[in-house]
Amino acid sequence: MKNKLYFNSTLNEKSQRAYASICKEKNTIGYYTLPEQDTTQILEYCKTIPSTIESIAVIGIGGSSLGAKAVYEFLRPAEKLQRKLFFFESTDPINIKDLLQEIDIDKTHFLVISKSGTTVETFAIYKYILLQQSNPECYTFITDPNSALEKYAKSIHASILHLPNNVGGRFSVLSVVGLVPLALCGIDIQALLKGAATVKKSFFEDGYLHNLLLQKSLFYATNHAKYHINCLFAYSESLKYFCEWYVQLWGESLGKRQRHSAFHVGLTPIGLIGPKDQHSFLQLIMEGTRDKSVTFIQIEDFEDKIEIPNTSLAHLKELDTLNALHFSDLINMQCNSVIEALEEEKNIPIDSITIPKINAQNIGSLIFYYELLTSLVGELIDVNTYNQPGVEAAKIILKKKLSS
Amino acid sequence: MKNKLYFNSTLNEKSQRAYASICKEKNTIGYYTLPEQDTTQILEYCKTIPSTIESIAVIGIGGSSLGAKAVYEFLRPAEKLQRKLFFFESTDPINIKDLLQEIDIDKTHFLVISKSGTTVETFAIYKYILLQQSNPECYTFITDPNSALEKYAKSIHASILHLPNNVGGRFSVLSVVGLVPLALCGIDIQALLKGAATVKKSFFEDGYLHNLLLQKSLFYATNHAKYHINCLFAYSESLKYFCEWYVQLWGESLGKRQRHSAFHVGLTPIGLIGPKDQHSFLQLIMEGTRDKSVTFIQIEDFEDKIEIPNTSLAHLKELDTLNALHFSDLINMQCNSVIEALEEEKNIPIDSITIPKINAQNIGSLIFYYELLTSLVGELIDVNTYNQPGVEAAKIILKKKLSS
Repeated sequence: MKNKLYFNSTLNEKSQRAYASICKEKNTIGYYTLPEQDTTQILEYCKTIPSTIESIAVIGIGGSSLGAKAVYEFLRPAEKLQRKLFFFESTDPINIKDLLQEIDIDKTHFLVISKSGTTVETFAIYKYILLQQSNPECYTFITDPNSALEKYAKSIHASILHLPNNVGGRFSVLSVVGLVPLALCGIDIQALLKGAATVKKSFFEDGYLHNLLLQKSLFYATNHAKYHINCLFAYSESLKYFCEWYVQLWGESLGKRQRHSAFHVGLTPIGLIGPKDQHSFLQLIMEGTRDKSVTFIQIEDFEDKIEIPNTSLAHLKELDTLNALHFSDLINMQCNSVIEALEEEKNIPIDSITIPKINAQNIGSLIFYYELLTSLVGELIDVNTYNQPGVEAAKIILKKKLSS
Repeated sequence: MKNKLYFNSTLNEKSQRAYASICKEKNTIGYYTLPEQDTTQILEYCKTIPSTIESIAVIGIGGSSLGAKAVYEFLRPAEKLQRKLFFFESTDPINIKDLLQEIDIDKTHFLVISKSGTTVETFAIYKYILLQQSNPECYTFITDPNSALEKYAKSIHASILHLPNNVGGRFSVLSVVGLVPLALCGIDIQALLKGAATVKKSFFEDGYLHNLLLQKSLFYATNHAKYHINCLFAYSESLKYFCEWYVQLWGESLGKRQRHSAFHVGLTPIGLIGPKDQHSFLQLIMEGTRDKSVTFIQIEDFEDKIEIPNTSLAHLKELDTLNALHFSDLINMQCNSVIEALEEEKNIPIDSITIPKINAQNIGSLIFYYELLTSLVGELIDVNTYNQPGVEAAKIILKKKLSS
């Protein structure tokens, strides 16, 4: 991947200290070690799922589903995958029934994913699906060792896989949480991890991304009061769910009270898809309050070389400039036009990321790039990147409502 | 629909003046009159599409697709619709090929929608699809009278429908732009308009929504520098694309230079879906910078009465509180728990909208409610709600790139 910053940012003592902290937390925060994990157990497990299984259905919410969905939806339209992947991630009854109509329940394997094993949504849905499919062989449970869920799974003799130590939900896509559903669909999880490892190496071993990620995170942190909205403007429909994954990662990691001041801070993530959102959100970026930074993601080569035909339409001659152009080139020209337009505005900080093409390795790189960036910004704006205390209050209220 | 404000807002001279302006612009801005339109011509046109047609495909982007998509995706999972609706709205080559694989081109009718008739994305896609389907009878063109596109459509003897006068793209869902694709899928467009008319009447004829919309818009406008992010937190997967429609409507209408000061202002829209985004964005709302207002949308009765079974799982007894609960009640309890949690925070302005159930009339009401709210806020923050000058710069740069 390439990343070009259009703004200036000079490394200083603060960024050096942040780097030192990251190097230290690398020994305790689990996600840093995921790129080098041994995938033998996962691949062996996958062989136990019969070839008659056509669909995999994840029952999980938030960190248990967004990562796998991002990778799956990135690769699905471009690659022929072995199985379809579905996500039961809402208590919306219409959605549950709609999804159940889409799958053949006897040809589906369910992955029930919950770290604690007591996520309300996951178990409401699991109990309902259990009514339609009672065979324990059709379920695998992914949870923390010794959780209540593990004990339950043991009691019904179902398969169990463990989450690695100290990996939070939103940083878990490169653990069993994401790798198992993806591998079951035939996605090359080793390539995914290789992509992540490349970024990790580049950052920690003084490669191309070392200075770059430090500069970018320093800029975001230093200016977080001014540019407190970060837009990710991805020029491919395939990145729609990557944007949703990014929104969770960024919002839940960086929207916090500061460690030392208890002051409310936060960087608000917004996912956009080009060219569609040129006809929607772009106006607000161009002419609205100057509180937004924008990162563009482009795919250099879509490989699928479809071309706008050399057709001239009566009365629409001015559209002949499109003729014989590859769509791949058109969409990137559109992105570059927006970049140029924003550049002229001066006070809208932008940068652009380019990945060579759509494959597992490149999405692995993007994921690890964003995880590192999040850790760095979190450190620099003085928050605990890895907790989410703000979601507890509503959970407690719900529990009370349910008990009464 | 019901709407409860949890914040205080007292009407004043400013809101009276804004209301007077809205009453005045009602005579020139086209969308206000759409609820009372005569749909005879649209329904007659629909009869001309053969019953062998199984899919409708919209070729259009932004205002030409988002509204119909919002309504279609709201109703599709709950109702049995006559035809499927697809949207070609990206120049992403993988997306175009993926969509073409999903439709049977000989059983598809294409609606090419472009106000000016020169939208780059629309014509790049149209030219490509023309290569696969050259029969002009398979196309209908929706455009401004006397546009270049109308002349072209006449030259190939294809069907043409006209956009009404002075209705901008993002306010066009209740015109032919949205009504034609929706009616072709068997959606009750008269109920849709009736829902809009009810809201219109309530607002302009001193009903329940009159004071309420004025209070809400006044609060948003008065506090726009502080609460400059507006979250729409909808508790149903069915409202996912309604949120996307809202993002365009709000962002493109309200992100502007002020009319009298040329100062950059803007209210940033964010669409959220519950309960999913309780596991993502909620942390940022609760503990991040206090710059967000939140509107909750709930569906009172999902009608599909599916229930969590009365199953007790070994080692997971604490989840028995879910037993025998309707999913419909659970999702609303989740929403109410978040509302209560936010209420306790004091300085997060919230309000909640409840619609009785999923049907065409209720989504029509929601649409018109948001259109009116947008017009009011635009007037109060002193912007031209109906233009989008900020998107021109990128278009001009693209045009240059294409010509060279």
